Amino acid sequence: MSTRMHKVIYDTDPGVDDAMALVFQALHPRIELLGVTSVFGNSTIETTTRNALYLVERFAPGVPVARGAAAPLKRAAPDPVDWIHGDDGLGNLQTQLRLKTHTAPDARPAHRFIIDTVRAHPGEVTLIAVGPLTNLALAVQEEPDIARLVKQVVVMGGAFGTNGANGNVSPAAEANMAGDPDAADIVFGAAWPVAIVGLDVTESTIMTTGYLAKLRDDAGETGQFVWDVSRHYEAFHRSSAALEGIYVHDASAVAYLLAPELYKTRSGPVRVLTEGIAAGHTIQKPANFAAPAPQWDNRPSCEVCVDVDSERMLALYASTLCGTV
Amino acid sequence: MSTRMHKVIYDTDPGVDDAMALVFQALHPRIELLGVTSVFGNSTIETTTRNALYLVERFAPGVPVARGAAAPLKRAAPDPVDWIHGDDGLGNLQTQLRLKTHTAPDARPAHRFIIDTVRAHPGEVTLIAVGPLTNLALAVQEEPDIARLVKQVVVMGGAFGTNGANGNVSPAAEANMAGDPDAADIVFGAAWPVAIVGLDVTESTIMTTGYLAKLRDDAGETGQFVWDVSRHYEAFHRSSAALEGIYVHDASAVAYLLAPELYKTRSGPVRVLTEGIAAGHTIQKPANFAAPAPQWDNRPSCEVCVDVDSERMLALYASTLCGTV
Repeated sequence: MSTRMHKVIYDTDPGVDDAMALVFQALHPRIELLGVTSVFGNSTIETTTRNALYLVERFAPGVPVARGAAAPLKRAAPDPVDWIHGDDGLGNLQTQLRLKTHTAPDARPAHRFIIDTVRAHPGEVTLIAVGPLTNLALAVQEEPDIARLVKQVVVMGGAFGTNGANGNVSPAAEANMAGDPDAADIVFGAAWPVAIVGLDVTESTIMTTGYLAKLRDDAGETGQFVWDVSRHYEAFHRSSAALEGIYVHDASAVAYLLAPELYKTRSGPVRVLTEGIAAGHTIQKPANFAAPAPQWDNRPSCEVCVDVDSERMLALYASTLCGTV
Repeated sequence: MSTRMHKVIYDTDPGVDDAMALVFQALHPRIELLGVTSVFGNSTIETTTRNALYLVERFAPGVPVARGAAAPLKRAAPDPVDWIHGDDGLGNLQTQLRLKTHTAPDARPAHRFIIDTVRAHPGEVTLIAVGPLTNLALAVQEEPDIARLVKQVVVMGGAFGTNGANGNVSPAAEANMAGDPDAADIVFGAAWPVAIVGLDVTESTIMTTGYLAKLRDDAGETGQFVWDVSRHYEAFHRSSAALEGIYVHDASAVAYLLAPELYKTRSGPVRVLTEGIAAGHTIQKPANFAAPAPQWDNRPSCEVCVDVDSERMLALYASTLCGTV
């Protein structure tokens, strides 16, 4: 693990696991949050922005929040997945209903905030994107040259089948890719270094009920929050996947940034299918692929995570929340 | 391994590995070849039919050969892949140029031969299909009720990403699926039991140069033929995949029929993408998939091979050719 500071813009649609990844970033001593940008996805843009403001006020006070896209580039906004993240997008905690947010979002839309912040710190900013990639696509479409000024883009999204999963919202598509396939295909084709943390590793990393209970007991107010916010989410995992715990989706993108050595990756350009029954499906051309592949060739190589040391990932998360990292 | 006889129609586009799978079937004591049906694919229908006639005359005399489809259901015939299988489709052996075939194909087209033969042996016939699935699709389209009279369909084709491969002719498509995606989607949706032996296992099973040399020395005239026919094919593997040997594609379908216990399988309906940059891509809905999947639901479950005991598979092939099985 390196010891350098990471300047991060966190692009997110909170979302329970988004919230769990936010506290991970807020508490890790080597992450400096430059901003949080909201996007539709797990809920409406109104709800995800309100949740982002709430989370930042509580766990990362002073960090700007910019409101992002309300819908994908070329389609209607999807319905909120309230059976997964709760009616309020935060596991029906309803904390934000009791606790009004006092801060206002940044005046700029998320993609402008991204552009300006990247230009202010050329070569230094990492974008951690854990929702539909609409904001990032809008930014790089509006000013393509910012791609070369971004240090790295770490995306939670996609599924490449190495652990059997090719999707979660459909047999062919992970939720963030299905949320805006056109945007994802643009982001994976832009001239910034992209790492993709998909279901191949996030569904292979599980926070058990016992792990979460220990966080609750050991990690103070944040641990209690993580426990509380994950009750509804855990019930969804129990009913849908017979899991006594939860998949670690968004926090895995943060862990990849902090400790890439925990992940085995595969290099090669990635396309996202934008039409048909598999819209949102991600397909990488392996670096050693022999035949011509005109639809992949001439696109930049992405790093796709295909395996993880999940035990050490979980230890990193816990030690961060406990302040012992 | 069971001890029952398998009545087989072998649907094939010879093709070097097709020829290697033909001798496997011809020599295995528990396979009764009821017929061989040709299809375009590795070469033109003229060449694959000529090769089928040659192979049957030499290794399975008396078995009928029926000429099949010259092109996919909805597209133009692809160009022969002569850099893989040779100008003659048999590794440039040119044996069939010296050795004229004396037998004529059956008067019926392949799909009629399949229909009639299945009806003559209701519930008993296994279709081993190792080329584009056009003949099988034509048969089941013409007389859909034959599907329930077929014992099993074993397909060499597709790729599901579990070992990193999603295709070989493109990053998204295996050759037989790309050859006729519409036919494959029909075959996987019909009411017969389908097992799919794709790149997940065929590229994980390798006949090394040493293995092939030992066959040449130990397996008589057939071993010499396998060695001779595979020289050009092995050179292709060396140049394209830096492999000192060859992937075991078509013979793996035969091995699955004889010894399914060598394969780990996954159950669930399979779709084949028919349009776009990933035409020919295969996507299975896992049996435990929780979300609704209207494009997969209400289709029959297929068995998809995701792992193989390649050592025992290779031993089965060698012992069959050596007559010691």
